[in-house]
Amino acid sequence: MKIIVDAMGGDNAPGEIVAGTVSACKKFGIEALLIGRESEIAPLIPEDAVGITIKNADDVITMEDDPMSLLKAKKDSSLAVALRALRDGEGDALVSAGSTGAVLVGATMIVKRIRGIRRAALAPLLPTATGKALLIDCGANVECTPEYLVQFATMGSYYMQCVMGIDSPRVGLLNNGAEEHKGTPLQQETYKLLKETPVNFVGNIEGRDVAFGAADVVVTDGFSGNVLLKTMEGVGLFFAGELKSMFKKNIITKLAALCVKDGIKSFKKKMDYNETGGAPLLGICKPIIKAHGSAKAKTFESAIAQAITYVEQGMIEKITKASESEAAQ
Amino acid sequence: MKIIVDAMGGDNAPGEIVAGTVSACKKFGIEALLIGRESEIAPLIPEDAVGITIKNADDVITMEDDPMSLLKAKKDSSLAVALRALRDGEGDALVSAGSTGAVLVGATMIVKRIRGIRRAALAPLLPTATGKALLIDCGANVECTPEYLVQFATMGSYYMQCVMGIDSPRVGLLNNGAEEHKGTPLQQETYKLLKETPVNFVGNIEGRDVAFGAADVVVTDGFSGNVLLKTMEGVGLFFAGELKSMFKKNIITKLAALCVKDGIKSFKKKMDYNETGGAPLLGICKPIIKAHGSAKAKTFESAIAQAITYVEQGMIEKITKASESEAAQ
Repeated sequence: MKIIVDAMGGDNAPGEIVAGTVSACKKFGIEALLIGRESEIAPLIPEDAVGITIKNADDVITMEDDPMSLLKAKKDSSLAVALRALRDGEGDALVSAGSTGAVLVGATMIVKRIRGIRRAALAPLLPTATGKALLIDCGANVECTPEYLVQFATMGSYYMQCVMGIDSPRVGLLNNGAEEHKGTPLQQETYKLLKETPVNFVGNIEGRDVAFGAADVVVTDGFSGNVLLKTMEGVGLFFAGELKSMFKKNIITKLAALCVKDGIKSFKKKMDYNETGGAPLLGICKPIIKAHGSAKAKTFESAIAQAITYVEQGMIEKITKASESEAAQ
Repeated sequence: MKIIVDAMGGDNAPGEIVAGTVSACKKFGIEALLIGRESEIAPLIPEDAVGITIKNADDVITMEDDPMSLLKAKKDSSLAVALRALRDGEGDALVSAGSTGAVLVGATMIVKRIRGIRRAALAPLLPTATGKALLIDCGANVECTPEYLVQFATMGSYYMQCVMGIDSPRVGLLNNGAEEHKGTPLQQETYKLLKETPVNFVGNIEGRDVAFGAADVVVTDGFSGNVLLKTMEGVGLFFAGELKSMFKKNIITKLAALCVKDGIKSFKKKMDYNETGGAPLLGICKPIIKAHGSAKAKTFESAIAQAITYVEQGMIEKITKASESEAAQ
């Protein structure tokens, strides 16, 4: 298996990205195709590293660039070259920590969607009290139709089953109440359709239920999904800050921090949005993982691990089949 | 000043509601009109209590009742009688810990909106790193127009200024990114309109900025507002639970908990959604405060304090004037 890596994407590129890739190749026995400025990347690869090749790309897409620039002005950027390499079969999957907008645009315009899938969605894994929940969509599609949401439910369900190993993932529809009639016409219509699909639909779930693990797949439009994701992140950071200042107050509280050191560590790990590595872009005809923009080597390695499982489990074939059988009905 | 109290609304009615009211009358030197089953309420009032009168209402609206039942089947419920008492000038403001849906329906149908205001909105105060932020709307109106949101911004701004004492409150529009073009057509259009209003519009804010106090007033439709509010509550409860089990692990961690006791207490107080007492229902022509359903005496007393400031600051007159001057343009 060969993973294509956008070596120049993200806040810590290329150093941490290359380090994470080198480590992943060693750990998982895979090959990697690093794409970016060869003069910057080559010196970062240890002499004993195996399975790594470099493909030069002179330009870089930054957070300030218009995502659409990927198609013309920045067509020689590492991300654009990586997407074309994926399209042309030079590797099995692509991992990038670069601009989310550009990854989305490029995935749809260069690699293309699975036939029959209306919209690709970005689906991060959220930490919950009982494990992880897949949020689909989290911002790629601010305006959705019931049909999109039903496809998100199907794709998310396959992902949690195939990649995360959950039998019959519970699919919940994000809403402002539990009752069937709740929400806008989008939720009301989607509710009716989801009842008829083969997914394990557990009904409407509210924002507060998500953190407690009420569903394995949380289906919503990109606007509300973004509100949910960012709110979780914000409250998490706020709490972490308050906790830190509570323990830093004086010598007694610092001592207390030592006593619960292990607990804090495991709590932090549980809440770490970087721990899972990245979010799959579901609905594209080749596997793409968007790693966190601030990903360091370890996080990037996890993102590559996710990409490997994504390829191995034949997710795309399953989604394609489901989409075709839906179209045939 | 006389505050009308729905004595039978909420999980802890009538005991905690009456206790909070008795305490508020003593503390703030006000009168209260308690509405509910006299036979249950009267024995709860201490002999030395002053300024309290009871108006009998035999029925009660429960969480299971259809909010619309307030108008017919449950027109003798404590809430319905209280709303009519407010409409008829038997008191200056109303506080209820009862069904949110029924309070919303009753406020609009019985007490009525301020002339020119399109929709009433429920606006809770959220704890943030720097103080409190008013979220408007949090669920009363799942579908909104740009005009509603602009009115929410104006009303929320007045509330934070008059009742919470914040000079020139910063108004933020909840969105999935900072840039002006972000969001659905609803946010895009509202952004343009808000730039032209006299409120101190600070632009789009994301879910993660809210917890850090990026705005004093967070304007959004009721659907997204509900997602934000419930997610904050959920993550808060999740964190509190994790923290608790971290400290309860063994004798050493229990000792640690003792060392940071004060810190935990002040943190809990900061995060307590009950601390502020209740959420104002803005846009109705008389002051109404919806207290938390699980409100205990202390919380209910705070909700009454909020109602008093609401009345004293002449908020309704200010919103009415703003609405009239807008209509005249």
